[in-house]
Amino acid sequence: MGAKPRNVLYAQSGGVTAVVNATAAGVIETARKHKGRIGKVYAGRDGIIGVLSEDLIDTSKEPARAIAALRHTPGGAFGSARYKLKKLDESTAQYERLIEVCRAHDIGYFLYNGGNDSADTAWKVSQISERLGYPLVAIGVPKTIDNDLAVTDCSPGFGSAAKYVATSMREAIYDVRSMWRTSTRVFVLEVMGRHAGWLTAACGLAAERPGDAPQVLLFPEIPFDEAAFLARVKTAVERDGFCAIGVSEGVKRADGKFLSETGLTDAFGHEQLGGAGPMIAQLAKTKLGYKFHWAVADYLQRSARHIASRVDVEHAYRLGEAAVKLALEGRNATIPVVLRVSDKPYRWKVGVANLADAANAEKTMPRDFITQDGFGITAKCRAYLEPLIRGEDPPPYRDGLPAYVRLKNVPIAKKLPPFKL
Amino acid sequence: MGAKPRNVLYAQSGGVTAVVNATAAGVIETARKHKGRIGKVYAGRDGIIGVLSEDLIDTSKEPARAIAALRHTPGGAFGSARYKLKKLDESTAQYERLIEVCRAHDIGYFLYNGGNDSADTAWKVSQISERLGYPLVAIGVPKTIDNDLAVTDCSPGFGSAAKYVATSMREAIYDVRSMWRTSTRVFVLEVMGRHAGWLTAACGLAAERPGDAPQVLLFPEIPFDEAAFLARVKTAVERDGFCAIGVSEGVKRADGKFLSETGLTDAFGHEQLGGAGPMIAQLAKTKLGYKFHWAVADYLQRSARHIASRVDVEHAYRLGEAAVKLALEGRNATIPVVLRVSDKPYRWKVGVANLADAANAEKTMPRDFITQDGFGITAKCRAYLEPLIRGEDPPPYRDGLPAYVRLKNVPIAKKLPPFKL
Repeated sequence: MGAKPRNVLYAQSGGVTAVVNATAAGVIETARKHKGRIGKVYAGRDGIIGVLSEDLIDTSKEPARAIAALRHTPGGAFGSARYKLKKLDESTAQYERLIEVCRAHDIGYFLYNGGNDSADTAWKVSQISERLGYPLVAIGVPKTIDNDLAVTDCSPGFGSAAKYVATSMREAIYDVRSMWRTSTRVFVLEVMGRHAGWLTAACGLAAERPGDAPQVLLFPEIPFDEAAFLARVKTAVERDGFCAIGVSEGVKRADGKFLSETGLTDAFGHEQLGGAGPMIAQLAKTKLGYKFHWAVADYLQRSARHIASRVDVEHAYRLGEAAVKLALEGRNATIPVVLRVSDKPYRWKVGVANLADAANAEKTMPRDFITQDGFGITAKCRAYLEPLIRGEDPPPYRDGLPAYVRLKNVPIAKKLPPFKL
Repeated sequence: MGAKPRNVLYAQSGGVTAVVNATAAGVIETARKHKGRIGKVYAGRDGIIGVLSEDLIDTSKEPARAIAALRHTPGGAFGSARYKLKKLDESTAQYERLIEVCRAHDIGYFLYNGGNDSADTAWKVSQISERLGYPLVAIGVPKTIDNDLAVTDCSPGFGSAAKYVATSMREAIYDVRSMWRTSTRVFVLEVMGRHAGWLTAACGLAAERPGDAPQVLLFPEIPFDEAAFLARVKTAVERDGFCAIGVSEGVKRADGKFLSETGLTDAFGHEQLGGAGPMIAQLAKTKLGYKFHWAVADYLQRSARHIASRVDVEHAYRLGEAAVKLALEGRNATIPVVLRVSDKPYRWKVGVANLADAANAEKTMPRDFITQDGFGITAKCRAYLEPLIRGEDPPPYRDGLPAYVRLKNVPIAKKLPPFKL
């Protein structure tokens, strides 16, 4: 590494979270502490799209106060994208352009903040930069509410979404428990998690005592068994007066088809889902005659910074910080991760994994985290989940609403010809 | 009023809220301060159903700590009911039974905590007790997230639901604004309010600057105009990249029919609605080709005590306190209300209205609270709404989740024969 400080290029990718900006704050504040070794931190506007189109944001134009406020601001402050680069053996044009942009702006460090797909991309960037002889340290930074990254104990974004769904489920249960005698018997909360049931599991944290509601959880990992489900709902209603159900958007039939398919796909080719909650509620009505209500949390669960988990915010910030440190150490093709040291008391530290191991390895719920009957979480699962939703870290409020920051997002001057995405 | 202290009968009615238990705390704590004049506070289990079936809860069995915790606990602590008494000229049996129960347990004060229907019931109870020569002071206490009670500046429960939907909308906007280039263009949040658009209006508070998202609000008071709606969405997407929409569950077509009718009715004969949000989102997709996401807050918005408005909690508690004071003053057939003294700074005081005026008078949004085009809120509306969501009053947390109280709800011994509901 030369004496001249080189720049950092930071980009957010995929679905945003309540704390991905806390990671950005960790990156930028840490970089600012190493002025002798790092020049500026540029951010891709709308993630990798801004990188490819040379639409880079100069974060040095933002005052320290604004960067600090990122820690309590949801969404993606520079924009994010659902945009997957081509396979390396299909086309190298995108990767070559990416290196060209780095070269034009003296980028020494590429930090890519996302999920499985993004770890894969960062890994490919590390390969292509070596192949093209451009000195670049490519680092991944974990982020996903789905918690399906294999190399880390948990992913920043998950803890806050988990705290949100568990709180929402608990509050809705207090509501339904008050009124079932003359009103709703079956309440359904649909949560995200296409293939991994971590957020569905988090609904189970709402139970205060063993046997408490929610009495039914429907995981994407467990094929939906209509008869068993209906029997379980009936038992719950007859025992407790009502049944609260947490259902994954990705719950599937035995044949592997999603319970609810819209026929739409997103940019990654993933099926766009919606409506598993209403479908499940309608089923209880049709087959058992119970009055129902359903809620679909949708984006609310991944942007509810107002009820973020303090542990999650801390993970997010510290991994951003660690990414910069790994970059400065020249540890190309790595990703900082959360390593759990102990459950009780909860202790963790930052670890380091190889991007090659992180890329596209999806972590679903272990079978022993789900009860034998498939409708609940085990004590082992609870022990895993509980520390991740611990602590509150409320944002400041102004006029009764969370006061979030909107950055100026000043672009740097372009030096290259346009590139067709 | 004799020298012997008489008992209070308190009952919750209709849909519960995040703060109706704060009213219960106000009632019980105030009654406990007047031991010389008030005996015990009994609560109807599941509201009026418990009253009619003589299933009364002895709140004196609850320690002060548990009653204090009601202030931060959502739902209905003694149960609530959607159960409307018969009309007085159809049958007096239910009312006579109610008086019989009061007589059996020396009830001197009947406090009925609910919305329009409940004010009507309390008023009828005041009439029948006079007719039957039983000395009873019947007092209403306002409660509804719909904010449609005519005699009060606002209704406890609304401010917290409004804060929840405004916060949720703001957070979702931070999410969608990050990602529209490759993902969702149209985001829809469906909120409650069957005939009154107060919660839809509250979505508008999410905007930080004039012209900000949410760009479209669909009120139940404004007939849905598909062409105007689609034009508005298109303009917003072309200008801002995305369009955020707040839609009332009760949005209606020009012919007065709900946009989404399930064909089900609740105990009050109200049409059970659901799905206006998904329908609106699907419409934007079908007609304009935009990718969409939708959320339905459902019960989450009326039970989200974790983000209650401090002003709302204060209203709720103080009206409960005021109800007991009115009872002690013998002011039969009245209801304590919120009187606004000024917007800025926000000042209010407790006022008193007649139950006869409160009964079944529904307050919808004034036309001058809605912009001329029908898709937004005016400065006047904002000035009205803003004070109601002010201040935070977070519950205590345990293990990362709100710690709410569950009462013992010990029944008193029955003295009467059963009664068929």
